[in-house]
Parts: sequence; structure tokens; C-alpha cells
Amino acid sequence: MNIAELGGEFALIKRVTGIPCGDPAVVKGVGDDCAVLEYTADRYLLVTVDMMVENSHFSLEWHSPPQIGRKLMEANVSDIVAMGGTPRWAFISLALPGDTSVAFIDEFYRGLYESAARHAVALVGGDTTRGRELVLNLALVGDVEKEYVRLRSHAGPGDLICVTGTLGKSEAGLRLLQSGRKDGYLAGYLEPRCRRADEGRAIARRARAMIDVSDGLGSEVTHICEESGTGARIDYGTIPLSSETIEAARAVSGDPREYALYGGEDFELVFTLPPDQREALLHEIPDFTVVGEILKKEEGIFIRKDGRDLALEQGYDHFTK
Amino acid sequence: MNIAELGGEFALIKRVTGIPCGDPAVVKGVGDDCAVLEYTADRYLLVTVDMMVENSHFSLEWHSPPQIGRKLMEANVSDIVAMGGTPRWAFISLALPGDTSVAFIDEFYRGLYESAARHAVALVGGDTTRGRELVLNLALVGDVEKEYVRLRSHAGPGDLICVTGTLGKSEAGLRLLQSGRKDGYLAGYLEPRCRRADEGRAIARRARAMIDVSDGLGSEVTHICEESGTGARIDYGTIPLSSETIEAARAVSGDPREYALYGGEDFELVFTLPPDQREALLHEIPDFTVVGEILKKEEGIFIRKDGRDLALEQGYDHFTK
Repeated sequence: MNIAELGGEFALIKRVTGIPCGDPAVVKGVGDDCAVLEYTADRYLLVTVDMMVENSHFSLEWHSPPQIGRKLMEANVSDIVAMGGTPRWAFISLALPGDTSVAFIDEFYRGLYESAARHAVALVGGDTTRGRELVLNLALVGDVEKEYVRLRSHAGPGDLICVTGTLGKSEAGLRLLQSGRKDGYLAGYLEPRCRRADEGRAIARRARAMIDVSDGLGSEVTHICEESGTGARIDYGTIPLSSETIEAARAVSGDPREYALYGGEDFELVFTLPPDQREALLHEIPDFTVVGEILKKEEGIFIRKDGRDLALEQGYDHFTK
Repeated sequence: MNIAELGGEFALIKRVTGIPCGDPAVVKGVGDDCAVLEYTADRYLLVTVDMMVENSHFSLEWHSPPQIGRKLMEANVSDIVAMGGTPRWAFISLALPGDTSVAFIDEFYRGLYESAARHAVALVGGDTTRGRELVLNLALVGDVEKEYVRLRSHAGPGDLICVTGTLGKSEAGLRLLQSGRKDGYLAGYLEPRCRRADEGRAIARRARAMIDVSDGLGSEVTHICEESGTGARIDYGTIPLSSETIEAARAVSGDPREYALYGGEDFELVFTLPPDQREALLHEIPDFTVVGEILKKEEGIFIRKDGRDLALEQGYDHFTK
């Protein structure tokens, strides 16, 4: 049996992480954006790791070396921000082909350091070795005040489902590149930027559940529902799109809201908000949109489009697609 | 210019980590077994990452899947133990070829969990993705009381250079396998075991500088001298060897002390000890040997063999060898 036959990446994760660790300090292990670790009286440690592989997470044909460095850092910072936390210390591991140029590495690190500086992250250590293809891993440690940690599991029926910024921009850029167009809106794909910790923390003070968009809105809402034991309705027409994303989708005859639902790596924040917190949060963080509502579990998870209720597809899986 | 032309792995690390991070919480970044981070009043956080690549750090022909899992964990725990610390939480990232069997992954995790249990480490989270070859990364977080952290940089002239257990066993097993013999002493290579945290901590209470043996005694003593600003004499005849290692070396016409000096991954501890602490430590940790002495910097770093002083070669480099 191979991984696709088992059911793909998520099935594999469930299989190998079934062993409870028995450590009472582990508040949250697998199943959220970060691990949440009990360490001091008033703060949790947060730890996340992300591995990126050449031609799967980035392409040397499309991405410049600094773009690869920035994407790796933004993807990890996004996980810390989605918990309501502050990123602190990063550790980079690289497997490099033997013919990798020093210029490439210098430029990769330049991007990595730029993104680290944007988020006040210290790049502290790492490991470098040789491999047949370029493989990058970033481990990122941060922390959060205990009362502000936001898990996927705290959504409740009646909460508004909200999303920061606009969605679908990463998938739109990828589709343009796949169709051979290098003149459209590529930045959403090549230069994704996650939300800053101060934005995530402002949201965390009012929201109940939070997650970042790494596999598409549909996948993230499903994760929240699974962990919270709820259902959800996503209102298709309300999904926020930028004019650049709409134009890019039109150029390749695609549907930008499908990109938002099922594309990956927009690194925006999806959160659930008690309705009475909406006005107050709009004054603090104007850049978010209500895209649906958390329902009771028995109502299911679905998309409402033109008055019809449609089932959600699943998110991206490295092994089954 | 490629990495070998730059001067290899250590030259590369020096080049890309030249940017000071400016974070006062970073007590030690690059240049020791772990990063040392200021976090609470009485303890430092310790973080280490290790990346292992198929056919470079392990061979699917020689290693069983549980052996790969155990080696990855032992290598990382060794870094925490070498600081005088206690390992706590591990995060595994895997790049897996698409045809990887679920049985392989189950067995790999079995080894990983076995080693984690031996060291009371909780395997908390991770990332799984697809790659052309098997690449593994472990990030490990631990901690240490501030007064017991042991850096490479604290050796002083007159300190005894000591090593736990025996050396050369990993290289001896590798040489046997390379020569096609699968019936000799292979465990030192296939099943390396690092020291337990309680041993490292007993040593840390009396020693001044400490490092684990991942690149051979010669390389580790050189690291201590560089970081401490000292010289060193290694007494060739005193390097501790097991009878299995001697026998394995004889079978392939090799010199086991060369393996000890220049082979990698024995995961024993090298530490420098004020002479007046020797007796007391022997009562607590009988399993160590004095192999030399820390000298003043101007005396140089050398091996004394049969009354002659010989220069040290350098350790293993993934890019230049």
C-alpha cells in the first residue's frame, strides 16, 4: 500500500500521529497550525515546521531565489500568527544539490532575512547538507499569552466566518504561469505575504477560532468544523477577490472563487467571530470580510451559491493529486 | 562558484550566518550544538535541527526503517544533551517519494517513537510532503538551567579533554558495510545511541566545555579550541576503542583510532574538565576517558602519537568529499 492508496497526506498524518505523547505540557500537538506547549505561567510556546520541495512548493523556473526564501518564512510565520502568537526564532535546514551556486544561496538567504526582518524574527541556526533536489525546512518558535491563543477547535454555532484581505490570488498566479503567461498578476503566487503578528493578535482578542489559508478556504473551514464539532455555510458570493485576481482568472478562463475555495497558500487568516464583536473589530482591522456562518454539526458543511447548497471539495494533497 | 569551491559546508555556514540577528534573547546562535535562547528567569530554551538525506546520512540498502527513525532522534537528542540540557519536544518533517510504502513509514515512525521514549521526548508535530528522494528533518526543543548550560567556548588551558564511552564504532561499521561484510560489528553505525540527559547533566555540573561527537574527535576538539580560543593536545594512544571496533577495523585493514578521530556520528560526549573534578566525576559517571589536554592557543592543536606531534585533519564535509 502506498500513500495515495491509504488516502493521501491527511490520512497518513492521522495514521502516524495516533500515538498519544503522554506529555501534559503538550496542550495541542497535531491538528492545528502550531504545536502549543505549556512552559511558563502566563505564556504558551508555539512551534511550527514547514518543508518545501523543489518543483512541488516552488519552481526554479518561476521563483527567484529571494522569492523562495521569503515564501518559506511567510508560510511559517503565518502559522504562528494564526494562533494569535508572535514569531520569535527560526531554524533553517537545507538539502542542496552539489552544483548549487553560492550566488543562489546568497540570494535565497537575502529573501529569507528580508521576510524575517518584516516579522521581527531572528534566524538563529540550522543545518545544511547535500541532496539530489532542493529541499528546505523551516522550524519556527514563537509564543502567545495563554488567554489569547486561538485554536481551530473553538468555533461555535452562530459565529461569523471571516477572512482577511482577498483570496485566490496565489492560485490565480499559478494558473497564469502554467498557461505560459508571465505578464499578469503573479505576485500573489510568487510573493505571498502573511498577516503581521499585530493583526493576528488584534483578531485573537475578539475571535474564537482561527486558522491560516494554506490549502484554500474550503479546506480551512472544514478543519475548523472538524476540530470544533460544528457545521458551516460559506456564502459563495461574498468571498473577497481582488481585481487583479479576477482579471488573471479571466485570462485563463478560470473561476476566481474556485481558486479561493480550493487553491492554496494565500496565507490570509480565517477566523470565527461572535456577531457582537464585528463592529469593534472593523474599527481595529478594517480589512476583513464575512463569508459565512458556523452552524450546528448536523446542518453539515456546504457552500451557498445562487440560492443552492453545494458540497465542498477537499483541499490540495501532495500524494493524491 | 559552487559550494565545494567556496570551501565546503563549514565555509558556507560561515558565509550565510554572518548577519547578526540583533535579538538580545539569542545567547548563542550558530556555532554550538544548539541555539541557546533566553526565555525565563532560570532556564534557557535549547533548539536544534538536523536534516538527513537518503544515501548521504543513511542507506535504504543498509538501514532498516526503524534504524533510520532511531538515528534521526538520537542525533538530535545528542545535541541537546551536549549542552547539559533535557530534550522535550520533537517535530518531524518528511519528504517522501510517491511510491513510499505505508509499511515503510509505519516502521520508520516505530523507530522514531522508540528513541523518543528512551529519552522522554514527546513527538508533537511535523510536516509531510512529497519529494524525489527521502529527506528527513527533525527539530528538537529542550531546556537547561542557566547555571548548567555548557558551550563549546568555555574550555581553558589545563582542562583535561575527556570522552564518554568508546569512539570509532560508527565508522567501523560503515567500513564493514562498504567492504561488503554484513556479519561484523555494524551496530555502532546502524544503531548509534547518544548519551542520556542524566549523564550529560552530571557531566555539565563539573565540566567546562562540551560537544557531542558527530564529525569525529579531531573535528570536535577543533571546534572547542576555535570557540574557546585555545590549543589542544590529543594523546593518540589513549583514545578509547571497543574490542568490537578494533576487530571490525582489523577485518578491513583499517586503523580504529583514525576512525575515532575522523569518523562521524558516534554521538558520545567530548568535554573539558578541570583536573580537580576528575575523581568526583568518575564516581558519578565511570564511563569516560581522558584523551588529552587543553593548551594555550599558541601551542596549537595537535595529536601526540609515539612521542611525535602530528597535525589534525579536518572532519567530514558533505560538499567537499
